[in-house]
Amino acid sequence: MIRIAIFGFGAVGQGVAEILMQRERIERWIGRYEVVAVADSRGSLCSEDGISLKEAIEVKKRGSLPEGKSVMEIIESMDFDVAIEATPTNIETGEPGLSHIRACLNKGSHVITSNKGPLVVAYKELAELAKRKNVKLAFEATVGGAMPLIKLAKRDLAGNEIISIKGILNGTCNYILSRMEQERLSYQQILAEAKELKIVEANTSYDVEGIDSAAKLVILANAVMEMDATFNDVEIVGITSITPEAFEIAMEKGYTIRLIAEASRDGLRVSPRLLPLYHPLAVRGTLNAVLIQTDLAREVFVIGRGAGKIETASAIISDLVDIYGNDRTN
Amino acid sequence: MIRIAIFGFGAVGQGVAEILMQRERIERWIGRYEVVAVADSRGSLCSEDGISLKEAIEVKKRGSLPEGKSVMEIIESMDFDVAIEATPTNIETGEPGLSHIRACLNKGSHVITSNKGPLVVAYKELAELAKRKNVKLAFEATVGGAMPLIKLAKRDLAGNEIISIKGILNGTCNYILSRMEQERLSYQQILAEAKELKIVEANTSYDVEGIDSAAKLVILANAVMEMDATFNDVEIVGITSITPEAFEIAMEKGYTIRLIAEASRDGLRVSPRLLPLYHPLAVRGTLNAVLIQTDLAREVFVIGRGAGKIETASAIISDLVDIYGNDRTN
Repeated sequence: MIRIAIFGFGAVGQGVAEILMQRERIERWIGRYEVVAVADSRGSLCSEDGISLKEAIEVKKRGSLPEGKSVMEIIESMDFDVAIEATPTNIETGEPGLSHIRACLNKGSHVITSNKGPLVVAYKELAELAKRKNVKLAFEATVGGAMPLIKLAKRDLAGNEIISIKGILNGTCNYILSRMEQERLSYQQILAEAKELKIVEANTSYDVEGIDSAAKLVILANAVMEMDATFNDVEIVGITSITPEAFEIAMEKGYTIRLIAEASRDGLRVSPRLLPLYHPLAVRGTLNAVLIQTDLAREVFVIGRGAGKIETASAIISDLVDIYGNDRTN
Repeated sequence: MIRIAIFGFGAVGQGVAEILMQRERIERWIGRYEVVAVADSRGSLCSEDGISLKEAIEVKKRGSLPEGKSVMEIIESMDFDVAIEATPTNIETGEPGLSHIRACLNKGSHVITSNKGPLVVAYKELAELAKRKNVKLAFEATVGGAMPLIKLAKRDLAGNEIISIKGILNGTCNYILSRMEQERLSYQQILAEAKELKIVEANTSYDVEGIDSAAKLVILANAVMEMDATFNDVEIVGITSITPEAFEIAMEKGYTIRLIAEASRDGLRVSPRLLPLYHPLAVRGTLNAVLIQTDLAREVFVIGRGAGKIETASAIISDLVDIYGNDRTN
């Protein structure tokens, strides 16, 4: 019996809960399980025998989880085998996720996280701690949403040297730029329209200034390319000063503009770059697209949904199967 | 000590040998190994203590391997842990690969193959035999060359239901069609030019008639979608009657034409289809591109090199690491 704790119960945490409610499907992969705790910043539901996820989602929809144990109290007082850490990202302090992950690893629980903050701030410390405690720290959901980027680069391309990783890691920027390409409207017009249509969130500064992409790039560089990079190592230029005229000139020559994050031995960089219009990375809409350049397999591109409640939850579930499951290759 | 036998010593077999000669790199992944036999249809080099791959490649370059044990004699008389089966594909009989793989699995050796024939003819039998003998049958190299398609769909997307797989599985067809798109020349002109430039092989009928794509589709359907499909289940239309006029009309509307192989619950089909010019599957040149449609992660596209000596060998090496190695996720 696998005992699961879910910390953070926003879109991603609820997405995980919705998938875990499909008990028959998930038990085919990992065997029997119970969710013994669900907690957010204001409350929690806990039971050693397993809580009702349906109830947790309904309670949350009506307001917030009932007052109860805090995440740290749950970690200290309850038995669970794996924690799903899906609290909000803070890339400066890594908190509260960083303390949660540290405490879980220290007590010998596996951790699966969608939270970029702790990994940007303390990847090396956490990876070494997990190794020392002989548990897994899995974080497929932190980069590229549903795309299995980390598993692909670290495992499926085994035997290869990874030369560089580059691509589009932020769907909001890509939505804005690909609309500018198609409509030749200004950055401001597209952004305002997208906010009105609720395609992008109200506060997009993390996105459009390249900060979100840079955080993901740091995680890829450390996890896949075995670098020891921090956020300050990334040279960052956002998309806020790209004009319709820049697109005009680019497109006359058969090019478009995308915000590209790149990690190579030359360093880490996030910046708007020209791409041939037919280039596999020149995707449209909110898609993410990444090119993994290796010495044997050469170029491998992955394109998919970089965000979304169920899409991100899917990456967390794939990590869960990775830890406990029998995959389809057996 | 892992004892490896290589059967088939054309481009792929030699590519594997070249990578295995980088002993320091590969031992980091799988530990100590020796290649105890290399055989092709006309001869072999064998030694229980390990042969020199450098010598094998040099001998082969000068003509063929020295007369010696046949593949079947090697399987019967020698000890090895894993066979790399890279003999030429025959999708009607599966031979000689089918007999090789059967015999290896039966004696309890793992098999890694780049040979589509045996899997198209007898996937189910071979998969069940491997399971019964508790050994691995790995075949990443049969579909999509260097692209880790099978590992991605079967393992990285664990927890997902795979709804359909569709895409471009033949680089020769894609080269011809994407050149027709760009140059508006006839199929015959592009083909003749490509043969002259040695971009495609002299005999392309397997490619342009859609047979190669169909064979790969059968493997994907059986291995990833758990179907029980055979070659005759595939509805096949090739690319030989596509005219420049067809491209003209498609492109006026913002579309292009590609040879698409698709497996879904509606069946298996290989046929030329319209794609929006900016669609992620509308890649150019000899690239392959595949869309895996799932219920949770939604669309995941993979694009990469579908063929090539080292690229295909890379997939075989990744299978070898999969069987014996410690991947980078630990």
